[in-house]
Amino acid sequence: MKKSFVKELAAIVGAEYTLIDRESLACYGYDSTPEHESRPGAVVVPAREEEICRVMALCHREGVPVTPRGSGTNLSGGSLGRPEGIVIQTSRLNGIVEIDEENLTATVQPGVITSTLHRAVEAKGLFYPPDPGSMNISTMGGNVAENAGGLRGLKYGVTADYVMGLRTALPDGTLLRTGGKVVKDVAGYNLNQLLVSSEGTLGLFTEITVKLIPKPRTKKTMLAHFPELEQAALAVSHIISAKVIPATLEFMDRVTIRCIEEYAKVGLPLDVDAVLLIEVDGHPAQVEEEAAEVRRICAEHCCSSFQTAADADEALKLATARRVALSSLARMKPTTILEDATVPRSCIAPMVTLIQETAQKYNLTIGTFGHAGDGNLHPTCLTDERDKDEIGRAHRAFEEIFDAAIAMGGTITGEHGVGLAKKKYLPRLVGEPGLKVMRGIKQAFDPAGILNPGKVF
Amino acid sequence: MKKSFVKELAAIVGAEYTLIDRESLACYGYDSTPEHESRPGAVVVPAREEEICRVMALCHREGVPVTPRGSGTNLSGGSLGRPEGIVIQTSRLNGIVEIDEENLTATVQPGVITSTLHRAVEAKGLFYPPDPGSMNISTMGGNVAENAGGLRGLKYGVTADYVMGLRTALPDGTLLRTGGKVVKDVAGYNLNQLLVSSEGTLGLFTEITVKLIPKPRTKKTMLAHFPELEQAALAVSHIISAKVIPATLEFMDRVTIRCIEEYAKVGLPLDVDAVLLIEVDGHPAQVEEEAAEVRRICAEHCCSSFQTAADADEALKLATARRVALSSLARMKPTTILEDATVPRSCIAPMVTLIQETAQKYNLTIGTFGHAGDGNLHPTCLTDERDKDEIGRAHRAFEEIFDAAIAMGGTITGEHGVGLAKKKYLPRLVGEPGLKVMRGIKQAFDPAGILNPGKVF
Repeated sequence: MKKSFVKELAAIVGAEYTLIDRESLACYGYDSTPEHESRPGAVVVPAREEEICRVMALCHREGVPVTPRGSGTNLSGGSLGRPEGIVIQTSRLNGIVEIDEENLTATVQPGVITSTLHRAVEAKGLFYPPDPGSMNISTMGGNVAENAGGLRGLKYGVTADYVMGLRTALPDGTLLRTGGKVVKDVAGYNLNQLLVSSEGTLGLFTEITVKLIPKPRTKKTMLAHFPELEQAALAVSHIISAKVIPATLEFMDRVTIRCIEEYAKVGLPLDVDAVLLIEVDGHPAQVEEEAAEVRRICAEHCCSSFQTAADADEALKLATARRVALSSLARMKPTTILEDATVPRSCIAPMVTLIQETAQKYNLTIGTFGHAGDGNLHPTCLTDERDKDEIGRAHRAFEEIFDAAIAMGGTITGEHGVGLAKKKYLPRLVGEPGLKVMRGIKQAFDPAGILNPGKVF
Repeated sequence: MKKSFVKELAAIVGAEYTLIDRESLACYGYDSTPEHESRPGAVVVPAREEEICRVMALCHREGVPVTPRGSGTNLSGGSLGRPEGIVIQTSRLNGIVEIDEENLTATVQPGVITSTLHRAVEAKGLFYPPDPGSMNISTMGGNVAENAGGLRGLKYGVTADYVMGLRTALPDGTLLRTGGKVVKDVAGYNLNQLLVSSEGTLGLFTEITVKLIPKPRTKKTMLAHFPELEQAALAVSHIISAKVIPATLEFMDRVTIRCIEEYAKVGLPLDVDAVLLIEVDGHPAQVEEEAAEVRRICAEHCCSSFQTAADADEALKLATARRVALSSLARMKPTTILEDATVPRSCIAPMVTLIQETAQKYNLTIGTFGHAGDGNLHPTCLTDERDKDEIGRAHRAFEEIFDAAIAMGGTITGEHGVGLAKKKYLPRLVGEPGLKVMRGIKQAFDPAGILNPGKVF
């Protein structure tokens, strides 16, 4: 980084918030993605929208790459900067600007932690459904940039379904305002939804307005064990086709169950092929009926055990198994490759079977858990990145898994993004026509190519 | 049109489906937008996706403008072709390809009539919520291109919220596939949502996959009369802030009530300022409670009459008033200018008041009805396009109404699109940065500028 450039950065955000020392830069050299490291040339931590726009304009003038970053929970390398570029870290823009109870909206700065917003709106009887696994660490800006999903996606949808308005700093430092508090708006192209899930390649959000809904009055949490995978998958299909849409319908396979039990000792049986965590919510009468229907369908599909939580404490206990799935798997080996291949929900059983067979074929340990109701699975490979041979086999296995997901009408990433980690697979999914228009869109927003270059495409 | 070009068109779609006679072209010279007429050079009516792609490729090669058209119910001039161009009419692609009960999706061709899809999925206990006023005539392709709204938008959202997958013929005749039956997909930019509401300027849909939901088990329909507008608006706000989200929450003002009563004789009182039509749906227990809550809130806000439909027949009768609102207004004068200014729902009362004052100021008859719960109003000017003076005043009035909507944080169009009719207002809403990226996006999809040129921008 040129000294004069760093000086200009410091003049905008303050010297204290312009980091160029080795220790600081080392902390920004990685995010939550294994096998990817890249240290940025500098990190700035602005406190205001105006500072972001000025930093962007400066970088635009100087041709310096910019990477936006929230909490660095990104799982596809999307928040990694480049040695010749800077990272803009949003943690100081962490205010909840407004909760509007009349219009059912919340307006937040990008650095607000997702679960902080949850608590603030729930205190008013309102509900912001998206609940990514990282919700206690991840920021709203990151959630919007990646279109984060979560455990409640089946009934309530994902982050994109809640974004109503954005203020976005464009790559040249211009501020773009899109949407707002209107629930219907068809004036021009839907830039809001284009910016959601653009992975920090089109602009940097400086303010986000999301839709809220009334908090569901009650919920019921259930856990069902299935000796056979196929039966668990059929139960998922039959719950949906019985017109019950659970808020949560989560799946864990045998490898995941064993790791969870070893780590968290929550009382899962070791002799079953699959466990489903199911939550129904809404009006008490509806919840009662839906819970009974779920129980009936699970019994029909030979579940060996079915527990219903009697109260909130028990519900938390039943849900713990799923909430600790990733950390239970992650502690087994130094490197955890967490993927998010996604298929139409009718393909859950063949997909899980294929993942297990592929793991066997390449002599790998892959635990699979995830959002069965969404068809969004997390095959998680437990490995060691220093073991080049095993890593090589893991890559070949995932390549087969992604190709199978595409062949089933699915996608290479349901909620983690393309970033650096899945660039190689994107052309197989979207084809040359898709890539061509995506590159054209990038060009429209960022002709100089300074914003998060090298990501997605 | 060059004879050789017409011959090439005929070779693709058949001579029978290549219309160049004066009578046919006259029928395509207008859509449902007043004050706009433009006769295309030719109309083709293809029967298959492949024909659409070939026609597009031909027009691309020859530089001939193409305008896609469904049933021509467009209210912003969006389906009008140009004398030097052709119209592609989608009515022969009218098949429901599949209703997938396991994945809760329906796949349709673009020419399927919206209410045909409604009936088909409801026969299976499923539900496709978007219900634009034109649903018995309009096509799914048009609904997606315009992001059509409807009476159930408050609780269930609009067309965009249901589009999962698209097959789109790009301007050069290439076929683009986006999304599918997966409920989560973050691989690359969200082209699906960009194509929705692109008003036929980016591509022509050849197949559409939409999300379905279980059909609500029951509903209750209510009609409330309010002597004072302000009280009706407060009732709307208080219903929402009481955490009741009705499926339908519709508003009619005094002018509209009088026109409806004169035309349809449904028994509306002539001495009230506002009528609200309210429908709650879902589980029977919840519906009971929510209906009681709605009744309580309306009473608190001094409604002079409150009717609850005892059965489906009575419900239909109560809803008739709102369903005939537009036709009741339309019969009063030769020209009906139906607008869709939209504001945050908290601004309904000031907006309706402003519309009424503006009508008075310009000596115009404007009836206002619409989706109060969405803040999406339909100020409808009853006029005569031959009366140049009155038309001039109407334009000045709407200019003030749109500016006020923007000032309130609203938009110039909630569900009708920009097309030709609102091009003038778009820059005021989205600003230069918004226009610049939209033009760039158009360029990315349609560098030759042949698809629906002159629309939106």
